[in-house]
Amino acid sequence: MSVTLDQARKIIRQTMAKGEDMKLKPLSVVVLDAGGHVVAFERSDDASPGRFGIAHGKAYGAVMLGMAGTAQMKRAEDQAYFMAAVNGVFGGHVVPVPGGVLLRNAAGKVVGAVGVTGDSSDNDATAAMAGIEAAALVGEI
Amino acid sequence: MSVTLDQARKIIRQTMAKGEDMKLKPLSVVVLDAGGHVVAFERSDDASPGRFGIAHGKAYGAVMLGMAGTAQMKRAEDQAYFMAAVNGVFGGHVVPVPGGVLLRNAAGKVVGAVGVTGDSSDNDATAAMAGIEAAALVGEI
Amino acid sequence: MSVTLDQARKIIRQTMAKGEDMKLKPLSVVVLDAGGHVVAFERSDDASPGRFGIAHGKAYGAVMLGMAGTAQMKRAEDQAYFMAAVNGVFGGHVVPVPGGVLLRNAAGKVVGAVGVTGDSSDNDATAAMAGIEAAALVGEI
Amino acid sequence: MSVTLDQARKIIRQTMAKGEDMKLKPLSVVVLDAGGHVVAFERSDDASPGRFGIAHGKAYGAVMLGMAGTAQMKRAEDQAYFMAAVNGVFGGHVVPVPGGVLLRNAAGKVVGAVGVTGDSSDNDATAAMAGIEAAALVGEI
Repeated sequence: MSVTLDQARKIIRQTMAKGEDMKLKPLSVVVLDAGGHVVAFERSDDASPGRFGIAHGKAYGAVMLGMAGTAQMKRAEDQAYFMAAVNGVFGGHVVPVPGGVLLRNAAGKVVGAVGVTGDSSDNDATAAMAGIEAAALVGEI
Repeated sequence: MSVTLDQARKIIRQTMAKGEDMKLKPLSVVVLDAGGHVVAFERSDDASPGRFGIAHGKAYGAVMLGMAGTAQMKRAEDQAYFMAAVNGVFGGHVVPVPGGVLLRNAAGKVVGAVGVTGDSSDNDATAAMAGIEAAALVGEI
Repeated sequence: MSVTLDQARKIIRQTMAKGEDMKLKPLSVVVLDAGGHVVAFERSDDASPGRFGIAHGKAYGAVMLGMAGTAQMKRAEDQAYFMAAVNGVFGGHVVPVPGGVLLRNAAGKVVGAVGVTGDSSDNDATAAMAGIEAAALVGEI
Repeated sequence: MSVTLDQARKIIRQTMAKGEDMKLKPLSVVVLDAGGHVVAFERSDDASPGRFGIAHGKAYGAVMLGMAGTAQMKRAEDQAYFMAAVNGVFGGHVVPVPGGVLLRNAAGKVVGAVGVTGDSSDNDATAAMAGIEAAALVGEI
């Protein structure tokens, strides 16, 4: 079972609204399904052009490893060569920092991930959590 | 000047609505800016997981070459090795068929591209045109 | 809105002239547009053959991340695995050091980037700024 | 011995001037040295963003194989799998059509190549020849 397009839209809209409330830099938000494939994405008008790749990389690592951004960052800090090797396996598509948030349903099962980029990694994650709550899902930062 | 997120949302929603009206298979729609970078994307719930890549490839070739999907397809049919070589240059990211639609503003300048996938290439392009009209832009199929 | 070819020519000529004034090693200079695509490039006769890639990498990271070379270098020093991961996302094309200079218009909007290589990173950036001023644009080192 | 930056500038300017005289679509022109490395490039303001890669691919194949665009095209038409294999060897960077012009000095030695893109392959090659004559070099189409 995966996040639906309707849920993805809610997550993106509310993540961006939260970013505006917090007066963050312009955000970009991707939602991936339980297979790591893109369901929906939006980039704010004043965001830099490369934001799809960064947002995607945060969410993609979360789904593929079943490990949210904070845990990935800790692993990268403790054992940089391991995350480098993981990136070899996954074609360089993993960005191991907060803002990659695992999506779980009420039963605790992973149904996808959200990737947010634009402000500091911690602010990106905070905005993502607001979006995830709006979709009645559970986020793991 | 590039397509805005607001325009991209209109294009995606109306392309999908047109697909439902035409009783097409579930569509996926991407909007790229004038530099070929993703502004927004949505994949219908019953679409296959690889649809981002196909939609992106249709739109990406259109922007990068300044040539819409129909013209790319003709070139691929006339001179297959040329489009194969182009794909080498662009990392394999070009899908040269209809459904990749150039976006122009009223002055005729390219402001991005739309990529639609899910049904036949011609139906994909027809749905895209409905979305583009809704955003008051001009499409080149 | 992106840097024009006429502006790019001015930037390149004046950057090179500044390098000669400062008695720097032979410079190579690239100008990218707001989508990260090459507008113009020149390599001095005695520069080493790989200078296009270095100049391009400095400018490309600046545009794609919306972050000039100095900020990228700080991030690379603080969090090396993050810039390594960013390079995975961008195909290894990012060179995160000074000499990658964001180009802004009078309204503060990013219109491209300049990449300079050949001497020390700081001298490269100083020469770039002379070129950018000659084109009446604003540089962010 | 390789084409100089001064010669490359002359080639680019005169190729573009010829394109304007012939009322061609906006051209992009690259000059590579005898090692296949970029010396100079310019893209016209209204050219599509991906033109560096196409221009580069035309010139790069010419230098690396010592075979101009017309001969490469014939080989691609006669033996498509051979040019596909060549592109595997050269990372997909070869575009085997006219507009890739070998540059020779008066002694007949290859000193680099020019790549032109924007109009038909034949028109691209005609414009390149005008530029090459202006630099007192000999072109092989």
